[in-house]
Amino acid sequence: VNQKIRIGIVGYGNVGKGVEKAVLQNQDMELIAIFSRRSLKNTQSGVPAVDIAEIAEYKDKIDVMLLCGGSATDLVEQGPRIAGMFNTVDSFDTHASIPAYYQSVDEAAKSSGKLAAISVGWDPGLFSLHRLLGNSVLSQGTNYTFWGKGVSQGHSDAIRHIEGVKYAIQYTVPREEYIHAVRAGKNPALRTEDSHLRDCYVVAAEGADITTIEHQIKTMPNYFAEYETKVHFVSEEDFHTNHAEMPHGGFVFRSGETSQGKNQILEFSLKLDSNPEFTASVLAAYARAVFRMAKEGKSGAITVFDIAFGLLSPEDPAELRKKLL
Amino acid sequence: VNQKIRIGIVGYGNVGKGVEKAVLQNQDMELIAIFSRRSLKNTQSGVPAVDIAEIAEYKDKIDVMLLCGGSATDLVEQGPRIAGMFNTVDSFDTHASIPAYYQSVDEAAKSSGKLAAISVGWDPGLFSLHRLLGNSVLSQGTNYTFWGKGVSQGHSDAIRHIEGVKYAIQYTVPREEYIHAVRAGKNPALRTEDSHLRDCYVVAAEGADITTIEHQIKTMPNYFAEYETKVHFVSEEDFHTNHAEMPHGGFVFRSGETSQGKNQILEFSLKLDSNPEFTASVLAAYARAVFRMAKEGKSGAITVFDIAFGLLSPEDPAELRKKLL
Repeated sequence: VNQKIRIGIVGYGNVGKGVEKAVLQNQDMELIAIFSRRSLKNTQSGVPAVDIAEIAEYKDKIDVMLLCGGSATDLVEQGPRIAGMFNTVDSFDTHASIPAYYQSVDEAAKSSGKLAAISVGWDPGLFSLHRLLGNSVLSQGTNYTFWGKGVSQGHSDAIRHIEGVKYAIQYTVPREEYIHAVRAGKNPALRTEDSHLRDCYVVAAEGADITTIEHQIKTMPNYFAEYETKVHFVSEEDFHTNHAEMPHGGFVFRSGETSQGKNQILEFSLKLDSNPEFTASVLAAYARAVFRMAKEGKSGAITVFDIAFGLLSPEDPAELRKKLL
Repeated sequence: VNQKIRIGIVGYGNVGKGVEKAVLQNQDMELIAIFSRRSLKNTQSGVPAVDIAEIAEYKDKIDVMLLCGGSATDLVEQGPRIAGMFNTVDSFDTHASIPAYYQSVDEAAKSSGKLAAISVGWDPGLFSLHRLLGNSVLSQGTNYTFWGKGVSQGHSDAIRHIEGVKYAIQYTVPREEYIHAVRAGKNPALRTEDSHLRDCYVVAAEGADITTIEHQIKTMPNYFAEYETKVHFVSEEDFHTNHAEMPHGGFVFRSGETSQGKNQILEFSLKLDSNPEFTASVLAAYARAVFRMAKEGKSGAITVFDIAFGLLSPEDPAELRKKLL
């Protein structure tokens, strides 16, 4: 009997809680501990909560550590540090900083002889894989990515920083007409700003001037000014009832010609009831691949581009060829 | 300067001609020769046409041989034989025979120290990858595959064998209402027979009884009897004008819950103006991966499940991380 893959979770926010559920759905994995800077009273599954200061004591007890903190502050520090002790999988998602982050994790993991998969999730992650697949198979063509409908934490935070805003959430909404145009092979020239709407739901503080708030949102550079932006003021009750979920999704297209007049279109899309739980499920599958590749002696930083899909499945390669090929 | 990947093509039907075009679109590849049992007068690109009996003379002149013959008769023989001399990529597509074919090619390629990627294309191939990805990421869920709208050669051939049929083509058409139901997360119980129509265009020979032909088509077991089948009799001119293309495509879904009430849907779809040209483009991209993996000393048979997407691209890994991750 094969031993189960021993998993640790670092960070117990929405993604960390999602990983906890995902590990329970995978029979070949065992959750050993959840590490946090906060002192957790208990966990959903009853697995031990451990102070992150004690993480080094688990060096021989955990095969793969899933890093579930935020990119901006947590991962830049934890990624390289923990890859110095454990095999890791993280969802570092600041696209522009990936090359620098890759380098710092790669150095740490090479020194420790561990393997670290960075920027796993759906974007970066599964969406990136489809941009790459599309470009490789159709060397002449155009890429399109649409996001949503879904919550953007960055944009929601930006609204919350405005004076007089009590609660706020922002949905990124792709424009259906452009999705249809791409699907129809029309290869439109599109900028992200043209192909998405920004839909904002705001609870104003008592006495706040909603006209000013709306103006401040709509004119905020980089976040909203370049987009068609809708602002809806709602009651606190409405907000908590109707805007508590974290759906997301999107579409990646590659559209290109293999010869004159022969257009070929690849489309990959996600429709997610829970963005953090889906991200967590992707992390769990990639933990399996990292475990296997580390066992074969691979070390350093890798990304989804370096990992064959066969390594993501608990099933035997011969079974996979028979059942899924 | 890196040397170009030297490609050979075996078989000069629709897929072979598509590979010829695909190689011309890829700057890092060079087409050396096209091998055929027929004596070809000339090729689209002017590349030499060579009798397949002389293939062994090219052992040091070709890095990867792309096998473009049919599965039923050509590949079962050519696959293992040519993998005994060259690295290969083929599109063996008889799903039920893949395990046996894998084994025969694996033995041949292991003996010769060559690498052979089998069953590359879109189904098997890219569709298989998405069945595997979906199963790995969402361990609890349901797979759906829809094919079309597109031409099925097997079904078209079956009609052509009926007495009194001069020309025939059959389009497999997925039922939109079921695609919408899956996209909406309704997780319907579906059989292939329920979720597809069969749409047939037939030119009858002079004096043939079209009522009899239609009855024979609609009652043909395995091919049509289990399906809703439409038969249209058309003129020879109409047939050649409107049914000369080979479009195809389809949809792969994985729909599953990560926790109670949180449904997550992955969808991959293709919309292809030319099925053989697209298949050929996939083969060309995988030739690049086979070339690289063979260089690193890997031998035997592999499938798309064993090949990381990063190997499909001509670009440098650091560039890919920067631009596409």
